Amino acid sequence: MRVTIKDVAAKAGVSTATVSLVLNDATGTRIPERTAVKVRAAAEALGYTSSALASGLRRQVSSIVGLISDEIATTPYAVRMIEAAGDVCRQTGNLLMLVNTGDDVEVERDAVRALRQHHVDRFVYACMHHKLVELPDGLATGTVILDGYEVSGTVPAVVPDEFQGAYDAVRELVDHGHTRIALLSDSDESAAEPLRRAAYLSALDDAGIELDPALVVRALALPGAAEAATYELWESAAPTAIFCYNDRMAVGAYRALRRLGLSIPDDVSVVGFDNMEIIAPELDPPLTSVQLPHYEMGLWALRRLLGLSVEDEGPWPYRMPCPLVRRQSVGPPRG
Amino acid sequence: MRVTIKDVAAKAGVSTATVSLVLNDATGTRIPERTAVKVRAAAEALGYTSSALASGLRRQVSSIVGLISDEIATTPYAVRMIEAAGDVCRQTGNLLMLVNTGDDVEVERDAVRALRQHHVDRFVYACMHHKLVELPDGLATGTVILDGYEVSGTVPAVVPDEFQGAYDAVRELVDHGHTRIALLSDSDESAAEPLRRAAYLSALDDAGIELDPALVVRALALPGAAEAATYELWESAAPTAIFCYNDRMAVGAYRALRRLGLSIPDDVSVVGFDNMEIIAPELDPPLTSVQLPHYEMGLWALRRLLGLSVEDEGPWPYRMPCPLVRRQSVGPPRG
Repeated sequence: MRVTIKDVAAKAGVSTATVSLVLNDATGTRIPERTAVKVRAAAEALGYTSSALASGLRRQVSSIVGLISDEIATTPYAVRMIEAAGDVCRQTGNLLMLVNTGDDVEVERDAVRALRQHHVDRFVYACMHHKLVELPDGLATGTVILDGYEVSGTVPAVVPDEFQGAYDAVRELVDHGHTRIALLSDSDESAAEPLRRAAYLSALDDAGIELDPALVVRALALPGAAEAATYELWESAAPTAIFCYNDRMAVGAYRALRRLGLSIPDDVSVVGFDNMEIIAPELDPPLTSVQLPHYEMGLWALRRLLGLSVEDEGPWPYRMPCPLVRRQSVGPPRG
Repeated sequence: MRVTIKDVAAKAGVSTATVSLVLNDATGTRIPERTAVKVRAAAEALGYTSSALASGLRRQVSSIVGLISDEIATTPYAVRMIEAAGDVCRQTGNLLMLVNTGDDVEVERDAVRALRQHHVDRFVYACMHHKLVELPDGLATGTVILDGYEVSGTVPAVVPDEFQGAYDAVRELVDHGHTRIALLSDSDESAAEPLRRAAYLSALDDAGIELDPALVVRALALPGAAEAATYELWESAAPTAIFCYNDRMAVGAYRALRRLGLSIPDDVSVVGFDNMEIIAPELDPPLTSVQLPHYEMGLWALRRLLGLSVEDEGPWPYRMPCPLVRRQSVGPPRG
């Protein structure tokens, strides 16, 4: 744990404002020298150093990192990336400024121009989902791409390892003895879908399970469409397990299975993807899901941007592992 | 609908890049005058004006609005406020820059100082939940508080009308004939909880229903704690309806009721609060809930900040109405 100004204040028995004034050598304050000594001693004992940002500001130079995003700050899906970016910035004395462009190229160009005018020269270009991007001109240098990549592979970029994550999900079902495993996938074009689908096929193949095409269905990645697709699947294919493209589709599958009078995992096992904290652990039974490593990707991007050590020095994107989070939705097939 | 650069490009039959170059009077381009004339005519016909921001940038003055928040950009709960703020900024040619402070006063002070150094003088101080705040010194002027307020009432501020929202929720149950209505409330201190609880008491009182204290329980506002509290409620009080403090608590209540073999709404009616889009419509049955008007509050705050007309000119906070969103979790009591 990082030592904070609060720790110093607690140890010295003064307010954080007093600590701040003392350690920033503020002039014209009425803080007794006795108190100042106590504060400096507490800071030294705890190994506290005032943030580089504060020092930067005293020199009238602020270290701003610009985070340009399509819409991640306006959706509930990828906010942990922003959290990680903010944490690294705080720990390194930088200030993170976010701009949401709403995927509008004009807003994007204006934002980059405004930030460059303010001497910001380090940028994170962040996408809501794994995406192939074309960087705007102003970001040709000093940029790391977060949850996206550009085609040349020469720009540092990090994405989730969709293939490995999906492979492990299907493998989990295979390991429990399932051979009739359905794939309930997204019907929209995306960078992730073909990778997760390829992993499904590959995991079946590696296990010597022949593919039944009737077990693969695609629908909008929303609960209602997934519910309808699950009914269809039960009419045509009778699986014993479903790998869902994401947790929201799993919500629909759960609803359909309940209405079909089927129990999870006794009659049917289900695995999701994304491991959304307000969905996966709260389903009944709690859903085994693949974690999208948003926080870890955010850490990677900021560390790379700030020249700190990271795994993988290109060609990019770096594929961040997606761990399987086991809960109670997977069991052996009945009978 | 606002006319965008895309509309102009479509009408003129050119790319948006060409429109941008022409309308920004870019020099040194190879755009034929014929094309430029066509673009200007299309822009005029559609009433398109290049954004004030772009004009600002040509004059080397960018109109930045700073949004300082405790943690709203790092949680999935209140992102619609950011979306609204971004929409107003885009429409008015301003650029919204977000800084998450993680509720750290030092980061907050540094962020305000950095933005002021860059001549930013309009701020939104945004909270994740309805909160009583103390504004940092640097924000004493030019600030609007979003989903929070300060004690003097002299700073423009907007919060949800928790009382009205909760009153309407309980009233909905009363109107269906319920008299044994439980309140499953949050055990944490918050600005919203006493208001929602007071509304519950007031709605019962107005309906001539005597309060049974056994019907009021408090627990952590999370599904697991709410589930446990629902079992307790069934042992001690046998309600026919539950008003839940928020949708996450309703998730726990649903789980408990299912395990108790009770059907919603045939045996028990349930109303939530927050109307979270990834929870309320997806529960089985879909949950009637009170909408937290995040988007509308964001609009209000930005319009007020930018001097556009808004309802309520103080004393603040302005209480934004919270509409009841009816779904399938409420019916008449059995028998």
